Amino acid sequence: MSLTDSLLGKPLATSEERGEHIGVAAGIPIFGLDALTSAAYGPEAAMTLLIPLGMAGPNYIVPVISSILILLVIVFFSYRQTIAAYPTGGGSYTVASENLGDGAGLLAAAALMIDYILTAAVGISAGVTSLVSAVHELAPDTLLICLMILAILAIINLRGVKDTGSAFMVPTFLFVGTLLVLIGVGVFKSIMSGGHPAAVIAPPAALPATMQYLGIWLLMKTFASGCAAMTGVEAVSNGVMAFGEPRSKKAQVTLTIIIMILIVLLFGIAYLAHAYGVTAMEPEGKNYENVLSLLLKAVFGRGWFYFLTLGSVFLALSLSANTAFADFPRLARAIAMRDYLPHVFTIRGRRLLYSHGVYALTAFTAIILVLFGGVTDRLIPLYAIGAFLAFTLSQAGMVMHWKRMEAHKGRRWHMFVNGIGAVATGITTIVVLVAKFAAGAWVTALLVPVLILIMMVVKRHYVRVRNEMADMTPLKVSNLQEPLVVIPMARWDRITEKAMRFGLLISKEIKVVHIHSDDEEDAGLVAMWDHNVLQPIKSGGLQEPELITIPSSYRFIINPLMDYILELEKKNPGRKIAVLLPELVVRHWWENALHNQRVQLLKLLLLVKGNQRIVVVNIPWYL
Amino acid sequence: MSLTDSLLGKPLATSEERGEHIGVAAGIPIFGLDALTSAAYGPEAAMTLLIPLGMAGPNYIVPVISSILILLVIVFFSYRQTIAAYPTGGGSYTVASENLGDGAGLLAAAALMIDYILTAAVGISAGVTSLVSAVHELAPDTLLICLMILAILAIINLRGVKDTGSAFMVPTFLFVGTLLVLIGVGVFKSIMSGGHPAAVIAPPAALPATMQYLGIWLLMKTFASGCAAMTGVEAVSNGVMAFGEPRSKKAQVTLTIIIMILIVLLFGIAYLAHAYGVTAMEPEGKNYENVLSLLLKAVFGRGWFYFLTLGSVFLALSLSANTAFADFPRLARAIAMRDYLPHVFTIRGRRLLYSHGVYALTAFTAIILVLFGGVTDRLIPLYAIGAFLAFTLSQAGMVMHWKRMEAHKGRRWHMFVNGIGAVATGITTIVVLVAKFAAGAWVTALLVPVLILIMMVVKRHYVRVRNEMADMTPLKVSNLQEPLVVIPMARWDRITEKAMRFGLLISKEIKVVHIHSDDEEDAGLVAMWDHNVLQPIKSGGLQEPELITIPSSYRFIINPLMDYILELEKKNPGRKIAVLLPELVVRHWWENALHNQRVQLLKLLLLVKGNQRIVVVNIPWYL
Repeated sequence: MSLTDSLLGKPLATSEERGEHIGVAAGIPIFGLDALTSAAYGPEAAMTLLIPLGMAGPNYIVPVISSILILLVIVFFSYRQTIAAYPTGGGSYTVASENLGDGAGLLAAAALMIDYILTAAVGISAGVTSLVSAVHELAPDTLLICLMILAILAIINLRGVKDTGSAFMVPTFLFVGTLLVLIGVGVFKSIMSGGHPAAVIAPPAALPATMQYLGIWLLMKTFASGCAAMTGVEAVSNGVMAFGEPRSKKAQVTLTIIIMILIVLLFGIAYLAHAYGVTAMEPEGKNYENVLSLLLKAVFGRGWFYFLTLGSVFLALSLSANTAFADFPRLARAIAMRDYLPHVFTIRGRRLLYSHGVYALTAFTAIILVLFGGVTDRLIPLYAIGAFLAFTLSQAGMVMHWKRMEAHKGRRWHMFVNGIGAVATGITTIVVLVAKFAAGAWVTALLVPVLILIMMVVKRHYVRVRNEMADMTPLKVSNLQEPLVVIPMARWDRITEKAMRFGLLISKEIKVVHIHSDDEEDAGLVAMWDHNVLQPIKSGGLQEPELITIPSSYRFIINPLMDYILELEKKNPGRKIAVLLPELVVRHWWENALHNQRVQLLKLLLLVKGNQRIVVVNIPWYL
Repeated sequence: MSLTDSLLGKPLATSEERGEHIGVAAGIPIFGLDALTSAAYGPEAAMTLLIPLGMAGPNYIVPVISSILILLVIVFFSYRQTIAAYPTGGGSYTVASENLGDGAGLLAAAALMIDYILTAAVGISAGVTSLVSAVHELAPDTLLICLMILAILAIINLRGVKDTGSAFMVPTFLFVGTLLVLIGVGVFKSIMSGGHPAAVIAPPAALPATMQYLGIWLLMKTFASGCAAMTGVEAVSNGVMAFGEPRSKKAQVTLTIIIMILIVLLFGIAYLAHAYGVTAMEPEGKNYENVLSLLLKAVFGRGWFYFLTLGSVFLALSLSANTAFADFPRLARAIAMRDYLPHVFTIRGRRLLYSHGVYALTAFTAIILVLFGGVTDRLIPLYAIGAFLAFTLSQAGMVMHWKRMEAHKGRRWHMFVNGIGAVATGITTIVVLVAKFAAGAWVTALLVPVLILIMMVVKRHYVRVRNEMADMTPLKVSNLQEPLVVIPMARWDRITEKAMRFGLLISKEIKVVHIHSDDEEDAGLVAMWDHNVLQPIKSGGLQEPELITIPSSYRFIINPLMDYILELEKKNPGRKIAVLLPELVVRHWWENALHNQRVQLLKLLLLVKGNQRIVVVNIPWYL
């Protein structure tokens, strides 16, 4: 078993595809980790903005989260319909471009690509940041740890979908399980105590209020921040193809379970924060602790369960980047199928997945991690905007989809559901963009058109190539003239002889070109030519090759040779020119340094300066 | 005029060579700068070791320098004979290998290469160190300044020999002139005052003596250190070819002038140090000044002449690296001519010099400068040993040379002169090696065998290639069978059609190979093949090409193709296999990313895994 095999798994035959299909239990960690872990930072993101309200803050958190949950339910029903309508994978890109045209599709594509790359970077760095804030000794190695996690994720994902599911099941269920226990016990205690439970370790007193009520701008910002909790919902609809039959059903069940758990987590955390009077702490303040940590201490105290839960949160967060790995390659493939991205993204690798998408995502994520030193706090505002833009386009596309399917039963109801979804997420997109514009959303707003432009250039290239190459006409067999053969010769040796013999095989007209310096003696060459070449040719009754000697005053070899070939090509319109280049193949790479690389240079020049009628033939000589 | 032209000068025709030849006036700066500037540090290197003798030190400097001068005169006469005997360039390498065999030649080659690289590095860094110790603000940029000077030297040298001569004439004559004035005035004042001149600014009092007399070990070390003043003497004999006719005469005159000036400078400085009672100062002590600075202050005081002289010393020192640039490429060429170094070193560049030698020297010097941060004090002990080893081998070789020329008039006298030289420098080599071994000469002693080993490996490679390639037998014209043509085809398009047409030109047997995935539909391909290929072929009365479809369960394209080609080659012994690879030539480099690079990979694999009978034909298609 080779290293590659043991690292990435054995190659899978195309026919083994069915074995790689996943069920609901594997679907939840693969497509749900991103959505579920947003419960760990979504409520906190909203609560941080409520700090100025002091003790009054916790009173607002339940309504804010509830409004986000309403939006989540709308989006859920909307995507449930999408999965049913697109059983081969209905990501926002596919839905938008099929129903709203290429422009909308490109917009969705750009938004999603940015979002997935940010998901990977933010997920990993958020996890590592948590780990580092617990174990301060690791702080100098933040970037290194981030890159190591990225590498592990890339390798796991290159092994294929099924392996990913098994690897992530335990951390996901541990994360969900511990949070559910926290919420269950907390709610139970709260009800037992008539809504005013006593904290085991009381949260720090809220800061004095600097504001008396929640203004509309602050409300917008709180809502926009809380919306971070909704990223990742799109993942399932994009990956329907990964499920086994009945495909749509399994995907829908997976989505339903993910959303239900997410609702319980989000609402539970909001309720507990209210019940225990927990307010968020200034992230840059002294003794900062996150809301989850405060809640855990209030409900359970600082025991083993506290550390188990926080540990599973760290683990799940850093693995949440995996959702990007599961979806980005599929998205890139869908875009590449329409010629907007390089076609390599459509090639399935040894383990049946689109490996180049994994490579690209890994590379871009690594670049972002390195650029930001593994600390990606500033990236979070850039991040929800892409997701919501994609939501909106997807659902607007679904409205058009139903509108067209006039025969479909209940299409009006479907249109209504998706329409509500489109309007709600559309408004949210605008709210998020406005509320977060200055904080970083402008970067996304700038990157989207750049990406769209790149994709359009790529498309234009492919269209041009296809138009030029397309040829369904039959082969033309007329005017088949033998090629003119050109052989550059430095001296008469075995490799030149080999080239000569090959030249004789394919043509009767051979030009042997010898470039010599002004001061070189050529008498020997002519005698050699006569004896070693012309005589055997004559006695064999073959047509004589022509020896062309070109003096070069400046000791250049390549230039006069190129000039000669181009001239020959011009003088013989309609003829092919075959340039035979003898090439020494050495046994060790370093031996190349001992031979001048003129042949390589000549090959390159012939390719760049040549044209349709010049063909290069490599005559290798193995030492 | 292109950038290259204005930077490096226009290309020179081979016939313009005579115009590039130099006379004595240009020869002195080009080949003498290294030798002459050693007057600036040689005496000081010896005097530093005399510090423990205190006031008694200056009394010993004249005898020590005198013994070095005697050695210098012996070497001078010896090299004078070498120049006469080797008018085409008689560097130690040539003389040693021609007269003492390849082993001695390689020893000289390794010693000289190390010495030249060190000369360049030490020269530049010594100059910059002087500059920096005068202008302390530049200290942080030491390495940068070193590399800039290196780059300037490389560019000047790439312009050609003649330009170098003009560029260096002023600094060289300024350096020699100011020092001669110093010595002249100093000696005059000393004689006028009866041997006890009064210093304008008195040198600091000598340190109290810690030793009473000069022991044999200290004497050896003093002598060995002073021998640094003799490096660079070899340069002229190595570069005889650069002179115009009468070549040997001009080279001899140049050598004579250089040695005479050097003798005057060395003896003058020693005499003045004795007369003014100047002792060297501890280089790492406070207020360190070098001996030249002390002498200048004693004779002239700290006026404009003081700064002019020190300035010209700095300039000449940093330019002394140029001697290495003048000689290293010629040496590398001489070694490469005997196959012990890559043949590129024998190629003359656009300006008629061996450009690759300049590149190599620049690269190695840059590496040393970077490794040592531009501070190469520690390299100085490594440095004289190579030169003396080369001296010895050269002169021993000359003894053998004369011994063989039995008819030559006065050969006994010549043998005697070179014999004296060989013995004197041989003893010196041992003295230097022993005295400086611990201080760094061991590095040279280690590097020499490594270099020799590399050169032997290179030679073995060239010999093997030559043996395999040599073919003075006539062309074999029997058994000329048409090649089997293999064309990989993904789909029927214009580039495949072009490959097909070329295939028809050169052979009647064409195999078109189509690799398809298990799950792909091939009915369309067969129909297309029938209609677009077979029908026109039949109606044209040509032989039918064969369509071979190979299923690939693992979606690999390259592997099954390679397997097929190697199998075909095995089944058809004696036949050539021509693999026609259609290749898209894009207009911009970035467009390559949009097409998969399978063709490049296949080419590489065919080259690496292929054999003598497999030939690759590139069919380019220009977009």
